[in-house]
Amino acid sequence: MSQVTILGAGSWGSALASVLAWNGHSVRLWSHNPAAVSQMKKDRGIKNLPGFLYPEGIEFFDDIGEALSGSSLVVFAVPSTATRQTAGKVKPCFNKNVGYISVSKGIEEDSLMTQTEIIEDELPGVLVGALSGPSHAEEVIRKLPTVLVAGAKDFRLAKKVQDIFMDENLRVYTSSDVKGIEVGASLKNVIALAAGMSDGLGNGDNARAALITRGIREITAIAVAMGGKPDTLAGLAGIGDLIVTCSSVHSRNHQAGELIGQGVPVKEAMERIHMVVEGVYSAKAAFALGRKYKVSMPIITEVNQVLFCNKSAKDAVHDLMCRDKKSEISGDCWE
Amino acid sequence: MSQVTILGAGSWGSALASVLAWNGHSVRLWSHNPAAVSQMKKDRGIKNLPGFLYPEGIEFFDDIGEALSGSSLVVFAVPSTATRQTAGKVKPCFNKNVGYISVSKGIEEDSLMTQTEIIEDELPGVLVGALSGPSHAEEVIRKLPTVLVAGAKDFRLAKKVQDIFMDENLRVYTSSDVKGIEVGASLKNVIALAAGMSDGLGNGDNARAALITRGIREITAIAVAMGGKPDTLAGLAGIGDLIVTCSSVHSRNHQAGELIGQGVPVKEAMERIHMVVEGVYSAKAAFALGRKYKVSMPIITEVNQVLFCNKSAKDAVHDLMCRDKKSEISGDCWE
Repeated sequence: MSQVTILGAGSWGSALASVLAWNGHSVRLWSHNPAAVSQMKKDRGIKNLPGFLYPEGIEFFDDIGEALSGSSLVVFAVPSTATRQTAGKVKPCFNKNVGYISVSKGIEEDSLMTQTEIIEDELPGVLVGALSGPSHAEEVIRKLPTVLVAGAKDFRLAKKVQDIFMDENLRVYTSSDVKGIEVGASLKNVIALAAGMSDGLGNGDNARAALITRGIREITAIAVAMGGKPDTLAGLAGIGDLIVTCSSVHSRNHQAGELIGQGVPVKEAMERIHMVVEGVYSAKAAFALGRKYKVSMPIITEVNQVLFCNKSAKDAVHDLMCRDKKSEISGDCWE
Repeated sequence: MSQVTILGAGSWGSALASVLAWNGHSVRLWSHNPAAVSQMKKDRGIKNLPGFLYPEGIEFFDDIGEALSGSSLVVFAVPSTATRQTAGKVKPCFNKNVGYISVSKGIEEDSLMTQTEIIEDELPGVLVGALSGPSHAEEVIRKLPTVLVAGAKDFRLAKKVQDIFMDENLRVYTSSDVKGIEVGASLKNVIALAAGMSDGLGNGDNARAALITRGIREITAIAVAMGGKPDTLAGLAGIGDLIVTCSSVHSRNHQAGELIGQGVPVKEAMERIHMVVEGVYSAKAAFALGRKYKVSMPIITEVNQVLFCNKSAKDAVHDLMCRDKKSEISGDCWE
């Protein structure tokens, strides 16, 4: 049995903490918010998963030094925009013999770094990896079947993550392709936003499936240019996660996209949603990465034009449908 | 402008005939049923797409010789089980300078041949290809955006299909990978059935996305063993078509799977659906192909055990979740 520290007590960090506790591991759950930690200690309720309690085997900390003390694995489960700051807090207690895993998704706006790249940047020499895949936290806490992929450049870390998380309800595959996993997870929301726009325009299942299929191809091209493998993007952290995101019609990305597709101005659509629409950041990051790596990205480009250049979703779809005639696979060669 | 013959006046053949007529081509639509042809001539109503009429530019035939006369392209749009018989009827009028395209999906039960292989078997030397992708006929006839892929070993045929079908509502990519296109299209229903079973068991979006992702990987392995390309299975005729099939909760495959997942015996589930559940044939064909090409196929195997060996869907899911620990990508190698 292992001792694991989870940084961040949101719904995903709390669900993963629960899995580890069920599997018999001892878990130290850290939150930056002392009031939240007091509350968790008092009633053991999971704030973002109403009706569920933290199982036995989980202790709560607001002091990051105490939380990290004695653990052989540390899970970064804070919002992606807080990862750099949190890694900075870990620094005084950094231990090269400990494994660090990111379960957050997102590209840093200015540096264009993935989550593990940020952690490496703050903690040079860190043993780091990523755990990802199609996973609503609400289903994991209900013990519904879920399948994830644990990626690390060091096989022992990937294997350790597989060993401690895997049980009959949560299956974990290993992978050496951290880059592919993180790029897929970070950019999926731009396609979710596009799928929402398509629905808002009144288009059907055919259009949505085509957008998802051609969209993951653009993300795959970006990931491959960055050193990822196509198989990873055709896997759990790529198309798998994208399918879950696009099938959840209540997602903020889908709702925002649908409003924009219906003709609501982008600014007003964002205001109506009230919360952060990650697809907007994903769209920016995808466009910046695509430009950096010189990748063809017609869908990502059109989404950016709709979001930031006042183009209508209807015109964007028309322009996508009427592009030059192409082969499905670039560089396809006939006998 | 071209003259095209469409063999089969079901919903898909009729939708494609309409697209060609809208694009200014002259279409000869053949049905083996003289009464149906009389009716079409009389009221021009599309039987399987209520409320829609055949546009001008389409003529109706029950004599296959007349229907084929003078056309430069012939589209096989009959049910997959009728393709061999229909190709036999074409034989007396077979012309090597004409292109033949299959838009049907399915593997022949005993020969394990794809649709274009059956056509080649009946018409040796034929110039043949396949048109496929995520496409409810109901959406194509409503002119909603749809994207397809036209595959042929001969580039000129793929290009011709792209040129005559493509317009602002129907985008067509070309591909040289006929095998990949046909295997993806033919085997998708086994995964749709598995997704239905998962839903019937009360599992969630995570499980469904994992089944689709790991399922298309098994189908990809079979297709690649048969000479197809992984990119094709990650494309419109592979994952694209599978997403449309799985997102249509009213599909027979989904309904049958759901009943089986709920514990209804397989035979009773089939009787309740009243119509052919293609996934049952797909499951058999996929298993036979996987065995023939020595491909690992845990999901396809479990679906077969549920359908034909009295195993419960619950036990099948349990056995899939508790398989040996694996890498996501076979042959993954660490630094």
